[in-house]
Amino acid sequence: MTMVRSTLPESALRVTGDALQETLVDLLGLSLIGKQAHWNIVGPRFRSIHLQLDEVVSTARSYADQVAERAAALGVAPDGRPETVAARFALPGTKEGWLRDNDVVRLLVEALTTAIGRLRERIEATEEADKVSQDLLISLTAELEKQRWMFEAENWPREDA
Amino acid sequence: MTMVRSTLPESALRVTGDALQETLVDLLGLSLIGKQAHWNIVGPRFRSIHLQLDEVVSTARSYADQVAERAAALGVAPDGRPETVAARFALPGTKEGWLRDNDVVRLLVEALTTAIGRLRERIEATEEADKVSQDLLISLTAELEKQRWMFEAENWPREDA
Amino acid sequence: MTMVRSTLPESALRVTGDALQETLVDLLGLSLIGKQAHWNIVGPRFRSIHLQLDEVVSTARSYADQVAERAAALGVAPDGRPETVAARFALPGTKEGWLRDNDVVRLLVEALTTAIGRLRERIEATEEADKVSQDLLISLTAELEKQRWMFEAENWPREDA
Amino acid sequence: MTMVRSTLPESALRVTGDALQETLVDLLGLSLIGKQAHWNIVGPRFRSIHLQLDEVVSTARSYADQVAERAAALGVAPDGRPETVAARFALPGTKEGWLRDNDVVRLLVEALTTAIGRLRERIEATEEADKVSQDLLISLTAELEKQRWMFEAENWPREDA
Amino acid sequence: MTMVRSTLPESALRVTGDALQETLVDLLGLSLIGKQAHWNIVGPRFRSIHLQLDEVVSTARSYADQVAERAAALGVAPDGRPETVAARFALPGTKEGWLRDNDVVRLLVEALTTAIGRLRERIEATEEADKVSQDLLISLTAELEKQRWMFEAENWPREDA
Amino acid sequence: MTMVRSTLPESALRVTGDALQETLVDLLGLSLIGKQAHWNIVGPRFRSIHLQLDEVVSTARSYADQVAERAAALGVAPDGRPETVAARFALPGTKEGWLRDNDVVRLLVEALTTAIGRLRERIEATEEADKVSQDLLISLTAELEKQRWMFEAENWPREDA
Amino acid sequence: MTMVRSTLPESALRVTGDALQETLVDLLGLSLIGKQAHWNIVGPRFRSIHLQLDEVVSTARSYADQVAERAAALGVAPDGRPETVAARFALPGTKEGWLRDNDVVRLLVEALTTAIGRLRERIEATEEADKVSQDLLISLTAELEKQRWMFEAENWPREDA
Amino acid sequence: MTMVRSTLPESALRVTGDALQETLVDLLGLSLIGKQAHWNIVGPRFRSIHLQLDEVVSTARSYADQVAERAAALGVAPDGRPETVAARFALPGTKEGWLRDNDVVRLLVEALTTAIGRLRERIEATEEADKVSQDLLISLTAELEKQRWMFEAENWPREDA
Amino acid sequence: MTMVRSTLPESALRVTGDALQETLVDLLGLSLIGKQAHWNIVGPRFRSIHLQLDEVVSTARSYADQVAERAAALGVAPDGRPETVAARFALPGTKEGWLRDNDVVRLLVEALTTAIGRLRERIEATEEADKVSQDLLISLTAELEKQRWMFEAENWPREDA
Amino acid sequence: MTMVRSTLPESALRVTGDALQETLVDLLGLSLIGKQAHWNIVGPRFRSIHLQLDEVVSTARSYADQVAERAAALGVAPDGRPETVAARFALPGTKEGWLRDNDVVRLLVEALTTAIGRLRERIEATEEADKVSQDLLISLTAELEKQRWMFEAENWPREDA
Amino acid sequence: MTMVRSTLPESALRVTGDALQETLVDLLGLSLIGKQAHWNIVGPRFRSIHLQLDEVVSTARSYADQVAERAAALGVAPDGRPETVAARFALPGTKEGWLRDNDVVRLLVEALTTAIGRLRERIEATEEADKVSQDLLISLTAELEKQRWMFEAENWPREDA
Amino acid sequence: MTMVRSTLPESALRVTGDALQETLVDLLGLSLIGKQAHWNIVGPRFRSIHLQLDEVVSTARSYADQVAERAAALGVAPDGRPETVAARFALPGTKEGWLRDNDVVRLLVEALTTAIGRLRERIEATEEADKVSQDLLISLTAELEKQRWMFEAENWPREDA
Repeated sequence: MTMVRSTLPESALRVTGDALQETLVDLLGLSLIGKQAHWNIVGPRFRSIHLQLDEVVSTARSYADQVAERAAALGVAPDGRPETVAARFALPGTKEGWLRDNDVVRLLVEALTTAIGRLRERIEATEEADKVSQDLLISLTAELEKQRWMFEAENWPREDA
Repeated sequence: MTMVRSTLPESALRVTGDALQETLVDLLGLSLIGKQAHWNIVGPRFRSIHLQLDEVVSTARSYADQVAERAAALGVAPDGRPETVAARFALPGTKEGWLRDNDVVRLLVEALTTAIGRLRERIEATEEADKVSQDLLISLTAELEKQRWMFEAENWPREDA
Repeated sequence: MTMVRSTLPESALRVTGDALQETLVDLLGLSLIGKQAHWNIVGPRFRSIHLQLDEVVSTARSYADQVAERAAALGVAPDGRPETVAARFALPGTKEGWLRDNDVVRLLVEALTTAIGRLRERIEATEEADKVSQDLLISLTAELEKQRWMFEAENWPREDA
Repeated sequence: MTMVRSTLPESALRVTGDALQETLVDLLGLSLIGKQAHWNIVGPRFRSIHLQLDEVVSTARSYADQVAERAAALGVAPDGRPETVAARFALPGTKEGWLRDNDVVRLLVEALTTAIGRLRERIEATEEADKVSQDLLISLTAELEKQRWMFEAENWPREDA
Repeated sequence: MTMVRSTLPESALRVTGDALQETLVDLLGLSLIGKQAHWNIVGPRFRSIHLQLDEVVSTARSYADQVAERAAALGVAPDGRPETVAARFALPGTKEGWLRDNDVVRLLVEALTTAIGRLRERIEATEEADKVSQDLLISLTAELEKQRWMFEAENWPREDA
Repeated sequence: MTMVRSTLPESALRVTGDALQETLVDLLGLSLIGKQAHWNIVGPRFRSIHLQLDEVVSTARSYADQVAERAAALGVAPDGRPETVAARFALPGTKEGWLRDNDVVRLLVEALTTAIGRLRERIEATEEADKVSQDLLISLTAELEKQRWMFEAENWPREDA
Repeated sequence: MTMVRSTLPESALRVTGDALQETLVDLLGLSLIGKQAHWNIVGPRFRSIHLQLDEVVSTARSYADQVAERAAALGVAPDGRPETVAARFALPGTKEGWLRDNDVVRLLVEALTTAIGRLRERIEATEEADKVSQDLLISLTAELEKQRWMFEAENWPREDA
Repeated sequence: MTMVRSTLPESALRVTGDALQETLVDLLGLSLIGKQAHWNIVGPRFRSIHLQLDEVVSTARSYADQVAERAAALGVAPDGRPETVAARFALPGTKEGWLRDNDVVRLLVEALTTAIGRLRERIEATEEADKVSQDLLISLTAELEKQRWMFEAENWPREDA
Repeated sequence: MTMVRSTLPESALRVTGDALQETLVDLLGLSLIGKQAHWNIVGPRFRSIHLQLDEVVSTARSYADQVAERAAALGVAPDGRPETVAARFALPGTKEGWLRDNDVVRLLVEALTTAIGRLRERIEATEEADKVSQDLLISLTAELEKQRWMFEAENWPREDA
Repeated sequence: MTMVRSTLPESALRVTGDALQETLVDLLGLSLIGKQAHWNIVGPRFRSIHLQLDEVVSTARSYADQVAERAAALGVAPDGRPETVAARFALPGTKEGWLRDNDVVRLLVEALTTAIGRLRERIEATEEADKVSQDLLISLTAELEKQRWMFEAENWPREDA
Repeated sequence: MTMVRSTLPESALRVTGDALQETLVDLLGLSLIGKQAHWNIVGPRFRSIHLQLDEVVSTARSYADQVAERAAALGVAPDGRPETVAARFALPGTKEGWLRDNDVVRLLVEALTTAIGRLRERIEATEEADKVSQDLLISLTAELEKQRWMFEAENWPREDA
Repeated sequence: MTMVRSTLPESALRVTGDALQETLVDLLGLSLIGKQAHWNIVGPRFRSIHLQLDEVVSTARSYADQVAERAAALGVAPDGRPETVAARFALPGTKEGWLRDNDVVRLLVEALTTAIGRLRERIEATEEADKVSQDLLISLTAELEKQRWMFEAENWPREDA
């Protein structure tokens, strides 16, 4: 028995529901590792990165809420329980303990680059299925690409550059 | 090599660090299941409980930040990574999918009751070790007991009553 | 003689103008029945639904303004006069007099579901004609689907479920 | 069966209920034609009148809410449905399409003058029946007379002057 | 010796002073039983009524202040001491201990109905004596009738209906 | 030729217009002597009275604006020019130069008492002519009586008491 | 049958419940006599003390709410009804009618001194029973001692000094 | 006997005191005629000029306060009584009754031009006497010149141009 | 060597980068000529257009920032230097010196119409290349079309109409 | 080696640097004795003076920051260390312990008079050296003279008057 | 034909007009290169300098507006068109493309130093011509010198130091 | 003769008074050296540390006020005069003149570590004497340990690490 009925047809719903559920896990995981770095960072750039990380966390939390409520609005029960986040989180994570500031910057560039790549695939996937959900994923991508640029810009000179 | 030196002696530090780390996991887990219920609740009391759950989440997130920064301030690296939260979370959790409103109320009473019981033990444990951390745990307990009362009050008539 | 010249070619303008004009009537009508229910609701869920209805009205009014100004910006005079709203309003309406709370919830689920179905057709229709107007309809749909979910969630257990 | 019981005796209730219901229709209609003019006005005074009209709409909406809730508070179910507003609206209305700025000013002077005349009769009628409702109609009249003066002042030189 | 001289003649002063003093006691008592119910309510409607009661208390406190300062402004020393409130409070009170949500709603309907009846008599009494004080009593009555309607609306279905 | 047409009949207009014009002069004059005292007061109660006087000025300015706009709204051109205020001001004024704090308190008691006496006559006069203007004068009187009480209360012990 | 279950063992609960209930009565009584003095004070220090008394009332009301909700959170139904406050209020009260400013200052010093003495005993009593409630009483004491100092400081020169 | 002693030598004080006293009268008079025009203006530019005049009044009142407090700060008792303002006001005034919008614009250009000319003389006069007061007159001149420009700019095409 | 790496493939990057760079120049130029008109406008509509122009400038500046940061986020260095803006600005400009109000309105209609036409081409161009950038251009177009409508509406009667 | 290079020539720099450094010490000292009096004052005027002193402290702190940053901006390292403030503070100080209210008023008049005299000399000294710093000293003097007037006005009747 | 007449004599006007026009170009150019650096900066100090540059841009824009409106107020049409800014901008500019953080800091020190040197000459030039404009240039210089110090302070150790 | 009577017994008062007085000096000194570093810091981390130091100063000032008012509330006159702060300040101070950014970070770690050590002793000392004062010292310690951690975290790599 469905508790919340959908306004989307079945197949469109499956595609959209998957895209939103995966995005939810990415964002909840990102908010946890963002806070982890916020608390454990050390080094001369501490304060600057410490503050910047809270903007990542704030973005991740706010979009997680929008994405999960969008899933619910379509009749798909979102899953953001601790065990789900831990089991399905697919972005680069972080080791235990104190983290040097330069390592944090590199970690964020990598995590955000991975998240963006995954989002761009879901933008394609939802084009036909649900333009409304696609629109939400587009605005999330814009925000994450902006934050990725800032970490990339301060990641310079890069080791590979 | 310790990156952040402590202002506490070694044994006091161990007791306090454990109390804070366990509290951090309780709070991060509570914020995740609070949001899970916020998104998945159904039933005539939807709106009222939906809003009340966001106050629980907001409390849990704000105190998680204070507790983790308190640990860091004492020279203990806090651990709030997804895998840590999933592995060590010890409060009652929730099943997947839609949740009926009465069940959500009961879940919150149980989760908060368990959290409070664990906190009262840590308040005892930190009495000697660090009064400053104890004070933080006391004010967190006051807040969670207030929120527990509200769910308890609307959990009436109880099945066992 | 055209008073405000359009930045769109003729045929695109006709499609877009129709989509916007119909949406305007849906929203003005929705704001009126939303207020009607806000004032006439009775039953134990009075306060919760009473407040929630004001959010529907606020959304409807704000988007009515954006939709009408978008029409004007394209050179189409919008029509939101009382006689037009009454004659062309196509969502489920409400009877005169006091309304029971459960009936109000069901009414809103139905009215919002109808409005969303009509909007999804207009999103298709404007894809070629005017992406800018389409974008406005998409964000309106997202908002109405969110509000529909909330009424649907508190409409449970449904009579047909 | 009465759902909301009244604190007024029967005959006083009928007089007061009629006065409030008619005022509600005047105000809802005024808010719709105010917005209609806000969107369709053209001419060199566009911006100035466009902004002023939103103040009329804001006043009309705010008092419509107070008047309807006053009726409900007395045990009379208010009726503000689209079909009621269209059928019973008795103020001068407006034609379809773009409106020249000078015509809008004249329209507002006339609509507000008519509304005020009707209100002054209801102030007399409610003197004995319900001083509390009378007080609300007095403060509404003060506000509409102020707005009427402003349109009258910028309606000068008048054609008949 | 009079400490604050009055701007009213003697007999008008006596009538007005009595009306204000009695209203002050009604309001202070109402604020106390409103808070009592705010703290002791249990049942599934807990959160909704708990919040609504704070609006009653806030209204009662704010008008108590205006009424007492109005008395002082006329040269009558207002009396709001604990013993006076307890001795002269004439609205329905509440029993000790926890209160079920439905009982709280019924209690508020009764207390507010009684208060309104008493106020309407004082509005008559002050018509000749002091129109300025009458105006204050009228606006207080409007506010209490609005709050009474809300409890009445959610008191439905009534036992006697 | 009348520039702004009235919504009142001729004789009611004359009575109301006079009441408003006289009140306007009282308030503009009061705002000037209030500021004069605000600037020239000396003595140990300087700061307390200095601040209190600004509340009188603020009240006087705000009501002067409402009263003048009310006159204009009725089609009576208000007159608040410097020469008019000086020629027709009928409240007790103040001498040139520094003013002792106790003298300022007495001055304000007298000026406000006179203003209130004049207002109470105009409230009677406008009862038939225009209830809307009467309502404005009533609320102004309430405010001035409150401010008069405060100066009276701190004027104690009085020389004549 | 207990409606709200406690997180405290029975004996600790009794000690804590008594401390909170007595504090609640002290604070509600204090808020009533604070307002009584706020309205009835006369003398040259009127304005200064009049404003200061509202800070006492505001503190008393805010802590009364926290104390009563703390009791409820522990499963003890708080009692703040008019008859309870009048019967159990144990601080120095005030006579009827106008009050001279110096007498008000002395009254507040005495009432606050008594309240603080009673609170210090309850801080001792709850040390073992409930550190969380003790923490609330400590912060209340700090606030009342600050307010007492201010009245004491302006009570100088004292008759006994 | 001087009540407030000066921090300036006698001759500098006389020059500065005169400059401030004359400026005070200019500003109080300007605030009165600004309001007079605000209330009595008619014509198609009503709303635009009506709002702009309130900015002139607000500037005049705010600087009148600064100028008068500056005089008091130097030990010169400022004089802003109604009779003083009427007797010494030297800017162009306005006739009684309704004012056409174009005439209001011209009046303001003239009044502000005169005021600025007088201020520039006082800036010269206070250069030696008191640089602190000079600074206040300079910032006032900047503000009035800005407001004069705006009326001048909308006074175009001018009759003499 | 690339300092900021892109999340887009090479050819999509070139198309998107060009669209953003050209939009940046349009917006910076628009902000400069908007301010130029804001300062140099004369005529009876001065105040109304003067204020409206600041909204254009504010929009242009805010979107210039978003567009440039979007380019940087994609790894394209934006170019908004004075010499670049002057050399590549392709909207209608304005002559030196004072500008009559009607001319300003016409200028803005033309400048905004040109800007919108160019934006609609870039919306097409970026459809395939980068939906995220396209979304930003769409919302900018919506805003400029709204502002163009307002100037068009007050440009009536048009010389060619 | 100079760390921050100056934009002023050497001799102008010396004069200006000295003026700023001395002003910094005056202001830091003033903020400390202002707080000292704020905490230690006793007597019937306690509350009024207690609040007024915080305005002095707030002014002193805000200008100290501006003055020190002005020095740094010119390439002069400001010195506000505890030992410097204690050694070079040249305004009248205060004794240890409680302070009677009248004595506090006198102390502030004296301290502010001395500070103003010293500032007037520095205004002269910086006229040639740096008009920008002079401007800061002028606005500080205006503020201190205003605060001195207020204490002087409430210092009346003076012992020597 | 002059559209806006001046309050200054001819020769003073020419000197002042030139000073204001040149300052306008400096500020508009500075706002453009400030934004250019804000967008193109890379390196570990990215975030810190990125934020600081927005304060420079905000200052430059705000003062450009004041300076241009000051020119207009004096009857001189200000010129801030793109071609004018590009042709007459005389501060050090920046190259195209990404900019390293250390280079940005050096660029800002140089640009601000040049701007300040030019302003100090104009402060001299306007001393006789117009003290009101001079005052504006003085406060602008104070602000730019403060911002220059901050970049200078973080430019250390300098290559030439 | 004691001016403010204490609510504590003599010996408890002495212990508590000493703890508060010493803390007051620590905090006032810390606020002065924090500002000194805020003004004199140079180096590439200027902006980041410059801002962080203002948070230390703000904390120090706010707690100094609470600590001093707590002393006064207990009947102990607090001493924060310049000479007292200079003579008794026991934290590490700073040399005159410009300060390199790394040195500032090290200085703050040391000063805060010292302050925290002293506070922990006073927390022990006041356990018996006055729990209310102890509570204030505990929350101050929590705040300073948080700020110390931040400086410690950015002090890495340490010379001794």
